[in-house]
Amino acid sequence: MNNPHIVILGAGYGGIMTTVNLQKSLGVNEARVTLVNKHDYHYQATWLHETAAGTIHHDQTRIPIKDVVNMSKINFVQDTVVAIKPDEKKVQLENGELEYDILVIGLGFEAATFGIPGLEENAFMIGSINSARMLREHLDYNFAMYHNETEKNPARLNIVVGGGGFTGIEFIGELANRVPQLCEEYDIDRDQVRIINIEAAPSVLPGFDPDLVEYAMNSLESRGIEFVTGAMLKECKPDGIVYEKDGKQVEIPTLTTVWAAGVRANSIVEASGFTTNRGKIEVRGDMRAPEYDDVFVIGDCALIMNPETGRPYPPTAQIAIQESKVVAHNVKAMAQGNTELEDFTPNILGTVASLGHNDAIGVVMNNRKIFGWKATVMKKIIDNRYLLKLGGLRLLFKKGKFKIFY
Amino acid sequence: MNNPHIVILGAGYGGIMTTVNLQKSLGVNEARVTLVNKHDYHYQATWLHETAAGTIHHDQTRIPIKDVVNMSKINFVQDTVVAIKPDEKKVQLENGELEYDILVIGLGFEAATFGIPGLEENAFMIGSINSARMLREHLDYNFAMYHNETEKNPARLNIVVGGGGFTGIEFIGELANRVPQLCEEYDIDRDQVRIINIEAAPSVLPGFDPDLVEYAMNSLESRGIEFVTGAMLKECKPDGIVYEKDGKQVEIPTLTTVWAAGVRANSIVEASGFTTNRGKIEVRGDMRAPEYDDVFVIGDCALIMNPETGRPYPPTAQIAIQESKVVAHNVKAMAQGNTELEDFTPNILGTVASLGHNDAIGVVMNNRKIFGWKATVMKKIIDNRYLLKLGGLRLLFKKGKFKIFY
Repeated sequence: MNNPHIVILGAGYGGIMTTVNLQKSLGVNEARVTLVNKHDYHYQATWLHETAAGTIHHDQTRIPIKDVVNMSKINFVQDTVVAIKPDEKKVQLENGELEYDILVIGLGFEAATFGIPGLEENAFMIGSINSARMLREHLDYNFAMYHNETEKNPARLNIVVGGGGFTGIEFIGELANRVPQLCEEYDIDRDQVRIINIEAAPSVLPGFDPDLVEYAMNSLESRGIEFVTGAMLKECKPDGIVYEKDGKQVEIPTLTTVWAAGVRANSIVEASGFTTNRGKIEVRGDMRAPEYDDVFVIGDCALIMNPETGRPYPPTAQIAIQESKVVAHNVKAMAQGNTELEDFTPNILGTVASLGHNDAIGVVMNNRKIFGWKATVMKKIIDNRYLLKLGGLRLLFKKGKFKIFY
Repeated sequence: MNNPHIVILGAGYGGIMTTVNLQKSLGVNEARVTLVNKHDYHYQATWLHETAAGTIHHDQTRIPIKDVVNMSKINFVQDTVVAIKPDEKKVQLENGELEYDILVIGLGFEAATFGIPGLEENAFMIGSINSARMLREHLDYNFAMYHNETEKNPARLNIVVGGGGFTGIEFIGELANRVPQLCEEYDIDRDQVRIINIEAAPSVLPGFDPDLVEYAMNSLESRGIEFVTGAMLKECKPDGIVYEKDGKQVEIPTLTTVWAAGVRANSIVEASGFTTNRGKIEVRGDMRAPEYDDVFVIGDCALIMNPETGRPYPPTAQIAIQESKVVAHNVKAMAQGNTELEDFTPNILGTVASLGHNDAIGVVMNNRKIFGWKATVMKKIIDNRYLLKLGGLRLLFKKGKFKIFY
């Protein structure tokens, strides 16, 4: 290939890290690189639960692309991807079309609602800066409204979170800290507010060590969270939800249902004719799509099987960031006409779930369990380490979390 | 009277200042004093336009009653007045009844909507901490919603303020400063937002000097405010307003209509059988109701005619505060069995209207016109002076406005 055109779709963890890696390693005349993203910023999807609860400002969560991408080396196109045409080597955007020689698909996730009636229309999702910021405002708004109605509406003060997995629990942890602040701000008694977590499995945080799950539930219950496990969400209405537990249907009046129980790959991937498994592209060892030698897939759009468990690796930021190193290496190799590509092997360093800014649980190196302040410190180190990788010390100082111990 | 019971209704400017004055001057065994108020706080009604726009926090605008009233000397009852029965010397509260020997009515104002259809249901009023705080949240909410709808709704970004009088213009001034902040917060182009002031008179700020009115309009127009004068609001719908100008009806789609064009005295006064003039009690020279020797009326519930103009004095904080001195003096005299009461004479020291925190217009001593930074400084001195009067240096330092020049 002579000065090939590399097109990277999406500036999530996988896309932006691939771009930054290529920007460092590729010579100016070796290839042209175009990054396409809907917004002119990248955001830390793993911080959105904090943005949504209102415990950190969205400007800490997002990073202007121009702050980490050298715009004189990389061509940035702010546009929305409509379709990918791998047979024509083209990408259809809302306002144009791009031709590529090598493509990297990093289009991220969207919420999966499993056909539960009303969920799509009436529930909030935590999927983007826009939706997180709106949820924050929605919470404030309902607290503000409460004392402005002659007939007080308790549904304004009931918050239902569907899903007790990683995202649901992290969000609940932030809410547990945020709600007392909201109560003070709007002269509302904390006891009038209910925060209810509904989980279909017999326990929250499925897959986590039972000791850590118990620790997490105790921490959250002591801050007034109610858990309903083994319960299926049946319907989400504008003014309430219905769940079923032990064959009985229960209704909770609420104006705030947050759906945190399922994500799937961006549906553009499936719609563009790739062979998919659970909506994702099951990539080869070198992160390329099975049918196309010039298409790499990264992050939540890529499916990699864990041979040990026979199940796919979870869609985490950690894995997307690790993948970006291999993808950038392989893209560069192809651009240089090299046919030997590296294979990707995930290296799970640990998992830490926050329970608000002051508590957390996790599993680190060699399956060591941690919780409380140690886990909190670890979580913030993980968050800060990524900033360092992405934009160096300057970015770390600008957006880092420095209240390490509380 | 032997240890008479003095009951003060309302902790607005008139009520709280009467209470504070009595607390200083009355001996412990001379009388019992009860203050009744809906909330456990007093608020600066003249700062509500800032609270509503979101330019100052509501906790700066309000003052816990216990911070300025000595609860061991004054009996504070947090309750809502339902009716006054002057013939029985009783006050009906939501949760009880009070008997009095001397009554002070300081129940403030409520919005007057002049029967304009839909205004009561759909417009926001700036009348209390609750309503101002909610309006602030409503503005935020609509900006937050804007990027979360597939079909963008420009009505979310149109703000209509009905009334170009003192309150309307002061609120518009704050909006002119606040909206660019909201645009930055929610990634919205300032040009997409319209702020429209509708006034029935041929000019805004009727009664003000034409030079100052021109100055104010220039200041606000340069910050993107649109004025529609000589226009009558005909209807307020949930999603828009209709006004009539030059015989033509014009519709503006908006989710935010703020009604700042009229106030009337608390309707409890009229409903309790007092003789009223424009809904208010036309008081005697000594601030007592015409038919009842034991009932004083203060602030927006009292009507005092200006003999020079033949029109009532405007319902301002300045006058209410001045009245409180005479009312407290006369109440004390009566409690001591003294029959010689003082008469009240208003002494208008000047009027300053803010146009945001960094601009203002006004008229001070000897009708001197001021504008720009001088008027801004004067406005903040007026605001701070009241805090000093009400709660001394301690309160001033806690709630004062110290960004004097900007």
